[in-house]
Amino acid sequence: MSTLGIAVIGTGKMGADHVRRIGRTVGGARVVAVADPDGDRVKAVAAGLDGASAHTDPAEAISAPGVQAVLIASPGPAHEEAILHALERELPVLCEKPLTPDPAGALRVMEAEQRLGRRLVQVGFMRRFDAEYERLKELLDAGGIGRPLFLHCRHRNASSPSFFTSEMLITDSVVHEVDAARWLLGQEITAVSVLSPTPSSAAPEGLRDPRLVLLETAGGAIVDVEIFVNCGFGYEVRCEAVGESGSAQIGEGQSMVVRSAGLSSGEIAQDFTVRFADAYDRQLRRWVAAAAQGRVDGPDAWDGYAAAAVSAAGLTAAHSGVRTPVELVERPALYL
Amino acid sequence: MSTLGIAVIGTGKMGADHVRRIGRTVGGARVVAVADPDGDRVKAVAAGLDGASAHTDPAEAISAPGVQAVLIASPGPAHEEAILHALERELPVLCEKPLTPDPAGALRVMEAEQRLGRRLVQVGFMRRFDAEYERLKELLDAGGIGRPLFLHCRHRNASSPSFFTSEMLITDSVVHEVDAARWLLGQEITAVSVLSPTPSSAAPEGLRDPRLVLLETAGGAIVDVEIFVNCGFGYEVRCEAVGESGSAQIGEGQSMVVRSAGLSSGEIAQDFTVRFADAYDRQLRRWVAAAAQGRVDGPDAWDGYAAAAVSAAGLTAAHSGVRTPVELVERPALYL
Amino acid sequence: MSTLGIAVIGTGKMGADHVRRIGRTVGGARVVAVADPDGDRVKAVAAGLDGASAHTDPAEAISAPGVQAVLIASPGPAHEEAILHALERELPVLCEKPLTPDPAGALRVMEAEQRLGRRLVQVGFMRRFDAEYERLKELLDAGGIGRPLFLHCRHRNASSPSFFTSEMLITDSVVHEVDAARWLLGQEITAVSVLSPTPSSAAPEGLRDPRLVLLETAGGAIVDVEIFVNCGFGYEVRCEAVGESGSAQIGEGQSMVVRSAGLSSGEIAQDFTVRFADAYDRQLRRWVAAAAQGRVDGPDAWDGYAAAAVSAAGLTAAHSGVRTPVELVERPALYL
Amino acid sequence: MSTLGIAVIGTGKMGADHVRRIGRTVGGARVVAVADPDGDRVKAVAAGLDGASAHTDPAEAISAPGVQAVLIASPGPAHEEAILHALERELPVLCEKPLTPDPAGALRVMEAEQRLGRRLVQVGFMRRFDAEYERLKELLDAGGIGRPLFLHCRHRNASSPSFFTSEMLITDSVVHEVDAARWLLGQEITAVSVLSPTPSSAAPEGLRDPRLVLLETAGGAIVDVEIFVNCGFGYEVRCEAVGESGSAQIGEGQSMVVRSAGLSSGEIAQDFTVRFADAYDRQLRRWVAAAAQGRVDGPDAWDGYAAAAVSAAGLTAAHSGVRTPVELVERPALYL
Repeated sequence: MSTLGIAVIGTGKMGADHVRRIGRTVGGARVVAVADPDGDRVKAVAAGLDGASAHTDPAEAISAPGVQAVLIASPGPAHEEAILHALERELPVLCEKPLTPDPAGALRVMEAEQRLGRRLVQVGFMRRFDAEYERLKELLDAGGIGRPLFLHCRHRNASSPSFFTSEMLITDSVVHEVDAARWLLGQEITAVSVLSPTPSSAAPEGLRDPRLVLLETAGGAIVDVEIFVNCGFGYEVRCEAVGESGSAQIGEGQSMVVRSAGLSSGEIAQDFTVRFADAYDRQLRRWVAAAAQGRVDGPDAWDGYAAAAVSAAGLTAAHSGVRTPVELVERPALYL
Repeated sequence: MSTLGIAVIGTGKMGADHVRRIGRTVGGARVVAVADPDGDRVKAVAAGLDGASAHTDPAEAISAPGVQAVLIASPGPAHEEAILHALERELPVLCEKPLTPDPAGALRVMEAEQRLGRRLVQVGFMRRFDAEYERLKELLDAGGIGRPLFLHCRHRNASSPSFFTSEMLITDSVVHEVDAARWLLGQEITAVSVLSPTPSSAAPEGLRDPRLVLLETAGGAIVDVEIFVNCGFGYEVRCEAVGESGSAQIGEGQSMVVRSAGLSSGEIAQDFTVRFADAYDRQLRRWVAAAAQGRVDGPDAWDGYAAAAVSAAGLTAAHSGVRTPVELVERPALYL
Repeated sequence: MSTLGIAVIGTGKMGADHVRRIGRTVGGARVVAVADPDGDRVKAVAAGLDGASAHTDPAEAISAPGVQAVLIASPGPAHEEAILHALERELPVLCEKPLTPDPAGALRVMEAEQRLGRRLVQVGFMRRFDAEYERLKELLDAGGIGRPLFLHCRHRNASSPSFFTSEMLITDSVVHEVDAARWLLGQEITAVSVLSPTPSSAAPEGLRDPRLVLLETAGGAIVDVEIFVNCGFGYEVRCEAVGESGSAQIGEGQSMVVRSAGLSSGEIAQDFTVRFADAYDRQLRRWVAAAAQGRVDGPDAWDGYAAAAVSAAGLTAAHSGVRTPVELVERPALYL
Repeated sequence: MSTLGIAVIGTGKMGADHVRRIGRTVGGARVVAVADPDGDRVKAVAAGLDGASAHTDPAEAISAPGVQAVLIASPGPAHEEAILHALERELPVLCEKPLTPDPAGALRVMEAEQRLGRRLVQVGFMRRFDAEYERLKELLDAGGIGRPLFLHCRHRNASSPSFFTSEMLITDSVVHEVDAARWLLGQEITAVSVLSPTPSSAAPEGLRDPRLVLLETAGGAIVDVEIFVNCGFGYEVRCEAVGESGSAQIGEGQSMVVRSAGLSSGEIAQDFTVRFADAYDRQLRRWVAAAAQGRVDGPDAWDGYAAAAVSAAGLTAAHSGVRTPVELVERPALYL
């Protein structure tokens, strides 16, 4: 078991979190280079690591000595360039979602992989590594509730960060349900509709929050997603799959129930880092193990592309108010 | 406390159930006349009662001696005529839903009441008497979760009777959510859309089951209803109201949890008579008490009309595949 | 279906509640006489009834014209005399628990019934009529979790009335679990132990509250009962039966779940009248139906006696701090 | 961040699991030596590690080059000798429970630590690292439910291994609740009683399973533990703490709820490795971090000793059938 040298691109909240996780909870890996346009920040992060180099240029970090794999946690628009650099060096990549902000960028990433003739890029759709989602996937695959008819999804955040836009509800939040639905059902999304109630007065001025996003799939299932990023009461990700012979629900679990003053209550996680802490850990561990063998063991570039295509259709549906079909290129052989 | 004499019109499953309930669980009332086109059936029901007369003609039963109130449980198309007979005699009426199969009939009932200058007709939307719905209504009225944004509804039956049609999913089943949404939110429905997954193979050939019905309200809320009348696993009516500051869920209660063979399980009611037994009892008790004073203390003819209008728009939306606005006449003063 | 004339003895909280219930929710019965030592109170109650006579002497009420059955809701020490009066007239009796405050009184009641050669007395252990308890009983009888090994019981009240004593925790509260255990398991109690934590500071000075009461049964099962009558947070009656092949839990049901301010909460009933409203209704309906036929269809005098004997042993165990065997007379043939 | 060299003593189920966990999920640590009396087994384990030496003598492994910390997962009787070897070399120790099979051995370990003047030994009571237990501890410490009065504990295994004895129900199973109760309440145990129902027919011949173990604490709280190691339906660890103003329950969480065939069900974990996987990971991570600084950050030798003393009293109570006081030596200054 040798140690995998990783370059981490982007040292904001997510990037710093990954650095910490690699150090503490992932055996067999260490960070050897970090990159961030903010020179002070990247130096501070590198200083906490044993022998890691600090860079403001991602390309430099990727080609630093000892780098065997690349973890990209920079903002979405910077992903494509960093991925292409990593692919030039044939390095495995774990890229935070979205793969790229639009389908065109994702297609270019896939072209690069096809030229290499191998998949190296994994997208950070970490719900696939969540224990509850994994059990739901197993149940569906085993036919435990028959052919799936509906996925009823709730995706709630206590509040949204100041930079959040109406578009990001779809491209940054619902994109998780887009990938989860595609993965759980094994079907592509074929159309998107968006219904918008009068926005919550708790949402910042101008933000269309909440919304109900309706996805139709190639296999005739319907996915409804309530996205509500200023729900106030916590972070909740729930999903009920309804099949021909039963239903299965995840995300309802409450660990501690307190009875007091006439109420029986459980705490609601306030943040995705609590709810999905284990999934992030597991994602990283499995990627490290696969990366050491040059394999991808998780959502790949095709998954990133499909999510980008659905997001684009979702934005069109949100703006036009009408159901919008999703068009996908033919799936290249590499991704079958 | 004198005893209220009731004529029961229709002695099928629902009618017979009401007769039994009046006898056993409702003090201060007794059945004095029963009517049903099936002469043998109505005679058998009357035989079990002390001094009740049997009729094949509803009008005759309504004008039988001692009748002070009328409970109508005949098929929907027979409702209007029976109600009008009862109104001619100024008798309080409890009419099973739907008030009438179409909005036009409901308007004629309302006209008759307006001529009398008083409301006498109550519609059998018994969810308004269910303890859980009552608590949800109180919470919403008290602003406990802020302005409502969504109602997520699930309405499931283990299996549908042989005579059930695709239209009845909307006019007989979803009509309960239509009334519940109007009552809970205090808002009329303004538009309907219907999404249909590939029908379940468990549904009879030709039945479009399940469906997702989307209602928009005058106050900018969205109501999504999964109607699935062949879900196989039981009778379930659940509702989650999402407001600006919280969410409230009903219908999740499990009375007994059994741990055995690797599973922790609760029984799911197989029938609405189990889930809503108390609501039916309470509806009847409160109607008897109000009827004795010539008042209506529950959903009235306007509520029946509005439900019929939404059902009609729902059918149009289901057939056309596009969002259909709901048009209501101006609300007459009597129903304000 | 003729109407059963009932004399209600005692018009305090429980008695008044029964009078109301007979009027509104029980068909086929009416109150024809009421008795209470408080002359003003009993007159006020009678005034609200159609043609009921008011008495300060229970014996007078029991022999009033039209009395066909007797419901006793006076304080425990007054039960025996009223029951014996009713038995002299061969009238069916529904007597609130405890049948009598001590085993000797219960034995005298049983002797009176044996002289008559028939059972007429039912004890108000209404949990036997609760839907959840009924399901648990069915499950146990059907062998659904194998031979029972444990009953883990929680019996909690928000707060205790001012007159409550340390003895009453056992004789008035735990007595419900004593009967429920005997009925659920079909076994007599053979020994009692009592463990007492430092009393809660929320309990009135001098009240040993809470306590853990341990019952051993003839069939080798163990019943532990947490009795806590000043728990502060509500009224809770929960029971987990553990058998050789599984466990079954009742009393956990929450009707509405609210998510707000970081918590997911359900309301806890504040009173037994809420939690067991249906059981009280059902008890009364079934007793009325059985009384009309001169039968007992519920817990009888033997059950009242056995509960009294266990309570007596429980008091001894509580005072002495050591495990105390329960001694029962041989079960008379009438009660087999 | 240098890498901590660990010697693992014992490579049975628990030991092998720890080796795997250090490799995959714990950053900053690696196994440099393994010991097991089974020479083939220990060689096989070492072969899967990069540069670890294999030993049949624990002392040899402990003094192998690069060893900076010792993890002991051998059978209980072998613990003391291995710990003393590690303490001679002033190495931090993580020792699986029980610290030693009897209080005398634990006292000798504590004496060795006192001679060194520092605590180096941590006992593997990993419930202290479980997220739910941590939340319960926080709640209790914050006074969230007032002074604790009861802990109601359920500890169930699907089935017991062939070598399990009636004594082990107390010394190997209930010992977890003993430590959890001491830690949660911050109080020593003062007396133990044991009640035994007729053993389950599912238990192996001669095994007194299940049992109800009653612990009394120095602060006047009562702890009841149902231990049932052949319950058949899964692995369950539940705990309800009841305080003066509320109650808090853990271990009820179900991640996925499936509705099918009239039942609503959740899976029950079949094994502690599922239920407490994260706790084991966290225990190891925190110990590695603390060990690197020569500190103990978890249950220490005093905790191991107290558990052993309660277990010894528990065995006496089980054999004699009477309540048995627990005697502890005065707590040495090092452990305050």
